[in-house]
Amino acid sequence: MARIAVIAGDGIGTEVIAEARKVIDAVAPGFEYTEYDLGAARYHRTGEVLPDSVLGELEGHDAILLGAVGDPSVPPGVLERGLLLKLRFVFDQYVNLRPSRLWPGTTSPLAGVKPGEIDLVVVREGTEGLYAGAGGVLHRDTPAEVATEESLNTRHGAERAIRDAFARAAKRPRRKVTLVHKTNVLTHAGGLWARAFAAVAAEHPDVETEYQHVDAAAMFLVTNPQRYDVVVTDNLFGDILTDIAAAVTGGIGLAASGSINPTREKPSIFEPVHGSAPDIAGKGVADPVAAILSGALLLEHLGNGEAANRVTEAVAAELASRTPGATPRTAEVGDRLASNA
Amino acid sequence: MARIAVIAGDGIGTEVIAEARKVIDAVAPGFEYTEYDLGAARYHRTGEVLPDSVLGELEGHDAILLGAVGDPSVPPGVLERGLLLKLRFVFDQYVNLRPSRLWPGTTSPLAGVKPGEIDLVVVREGTEGLYAGAGGVLHRDTPAEVATEESLNTRHGAERAIRDAFARAAKRPRRKVTLVHKTNVLTHAGGLWARAFAAVAAEHPDVETEYQHVDAAAMFLVTNPQRYDVVVTDNLFGDILTDIAAAVTGGIGLAASGSINPTREKPSIFEPVHGSAPDIAGKGVADPVAAILSGALLLEHLGNGEAANRVTEAVAAELASRTPGATPRTAEVGDRLASNA
Ligand SMILES: CC(C)[C@H](C(=O)O)[C@@H](O)C(=O)O
Ligand SMILES: CC(C)[C@H](C(=O)O)[C@@H](O)C(=O)O
Repeated sequence: MARIAVIAGDGIGTEVIAEARKVIDAVAPGFEYTEYDLGAARYHRTGEVLPDSVLGELEGHDAILLGAVGDPSVPPGVLERGLLLKLRFVFDQYVNLRPSRLWPGTTSPLAGVKPGEIDLVVVREGTEGLYAGAGGVLHRDTPAEVATEESLNTRHGAERAIRDAFARAAKRPRRKVTLVHKTNVLTHAGGLWARAFAAVAAEHPDVETEYQHVDAAAMFLVTNPQRYDVVVTDNLFGDILTDIAAAVTGGIGLAASGSINPTREKPSIFEPVHGSAPDIAGKGVADPVAAILSGALLLEHLGNGEAANRVTEAVAAELASRTPGATPRTAEVGDRLASNA
Repeated sequence: MARIAVIAGDGIGTEVIAEARKVIDAVAPGFEYTEYDLGAARYHRTGEVLPDSVLGELEGHDAILLGAVGDPSVPPGVLERGLLLKLRFVFDQYVNLRPSRLWPGTTSPLAGVKPGEIDLVVVREGTEGLYAGAGGVLHRDTPAEVATEESLNTRHGAERAIRDAFARAAKRPRRKVTLVHKTNVLTHAGGLWARAFAAVAAEHPDVETEYQHVDAAAMFLVTNPQRYDVVVTDNLFGDILTDIAAAVTGGIGLAASGSINPTREKPSIFEPVHGSAPDIAGKGVADPVAAILSGALLLEHLGNGEAANRVTEAVAAELASRTPGATPRTAEVGDRLASNA
């Protein structure tokens, strides 16, 4: 039986994760869950972000289900670099997967775009680029101050993400992969990505390919998001593009994500894209759908695609039946999905 | 009298620049224009991108009016790095100015957003960051390939762009500046930008300030673009965000830009954001409004704010009177604006 580490985290994280567990338990009973107390609350209480002992224990799991960590009271970067990004790097989660669908019953901020028309998935490289943390500062806070950030890219890293994107596209009806970079300005890294893309594309003559500069892609995600099927891109571009994709499909409130190590040698993390939302925490009104959809990604990753589909279909029905503008009750949504999935 | 260098460029570049000149001539007669043949056509004919002699001549001008350079037949990067970016760097055009307005008579792809509601300007730093061209490739096209891109940031560079943003905000009714960066991940460069921003903000207690991560800003430009007044950000983030801003205000077809050296010691460039559009070139149907609005930015930069306002108002009236869906006739639009401005 799969062993799942649960990092419910802060704010609404604990609330939505309770519902995700309910639903996973309903469709795939018998997983063994271990809870880990990490996030802003623990940081304030003990000063710890991610003790090595906890990191070691997490590594022994098959997957990690994460709610949300963070609070405005924690200085920027502490939990991001010390916890979230650290896990992505240590567990070599090179596929940061972000599906975006305009679900039945939901409304896009884009005029005239109908449910079902947007159905794309971004494969964001998760272990390289500007997220490497390479760089420094000299002469801090003087007129002579300089700061650098270095984007580190390897053929190994780009190629494995691109390979994953093609494998996903090959299983989808439209079979199309769009590479997004900025090859006309970032000629070094862009060249590496373009060469890796061309090599993998040659192995997949059945998959349609295209290339777009990141600025054009950002625009097309607004003017014509329907055109995308699978998008593959680097870590920072993926960070930006997936938030645009979430925005045009009704906001990060519904967006699920996986930080995936496809080899399964190290655990992958599944988490809603939304944050801890301290303003609505404790009120029982957080929508657990993004966490539950993240649970579906977890099930799929663990090889239980059938259970994952049941969850996804139950979510589709749930969203289609909602009264527009009504506030979801966290536990009721979880109960409903657990019994309908 | 001001001396204007004209680089009409390729495709529709020549068509829209003819109209921009008509309109500038009507509101500010007597400028001396010199045409420079640069772009894809010259590159193919002579192999030259930007001869040093031409660069020297351009430097002797008060401003440069540019149409569009480029063609799919030119390898990516050749004209971008060799011409456009080279001019920005050599002429130290540290303010890349991109206003976005939802004009009367135009339609946003965003449901329910009305003309007049979006009126923002992005001050994109133009001479630093990942555009510096620093980086390299080793073991090209082998499994061991690595590529780097280095973002170079100076206090000097960030501060002068931020200072320009605050000066613009102080003259606008809402007096608000949003800094966009990614301080939680790009801690080195993000820290430099945040420190420079705080220092300049302290000199402007009358200007409201806020900070947003680039992924959040990309999302809010879709879900709530009305919230922005002046946005200041680095070179690459600005490249992406301004295309989103253009998308939500009706597309790059109407977007004007200036690559500005506010000291006026070197010439600034004013150009529409759109490209050379070879598919519609020569048909007389390219909308010259973006080029004409770039002309208004040029007039303002040269100290003729009154003429700039007349052009902007004439454009507002022109757009408000257009039949939705009708194809603009390039020369007719220019004639109309020249006589109405
Ligand atoms: C919190 C932050 C470090 C993170 C990122 O930049 O990857 C977030 O924006 C995300 O997209 O998961
Ligand atoms: C053509 C390219 C080099 C340029 C940029 O990236 O700055 C363009 O996208 C722009 O926004 O002016």
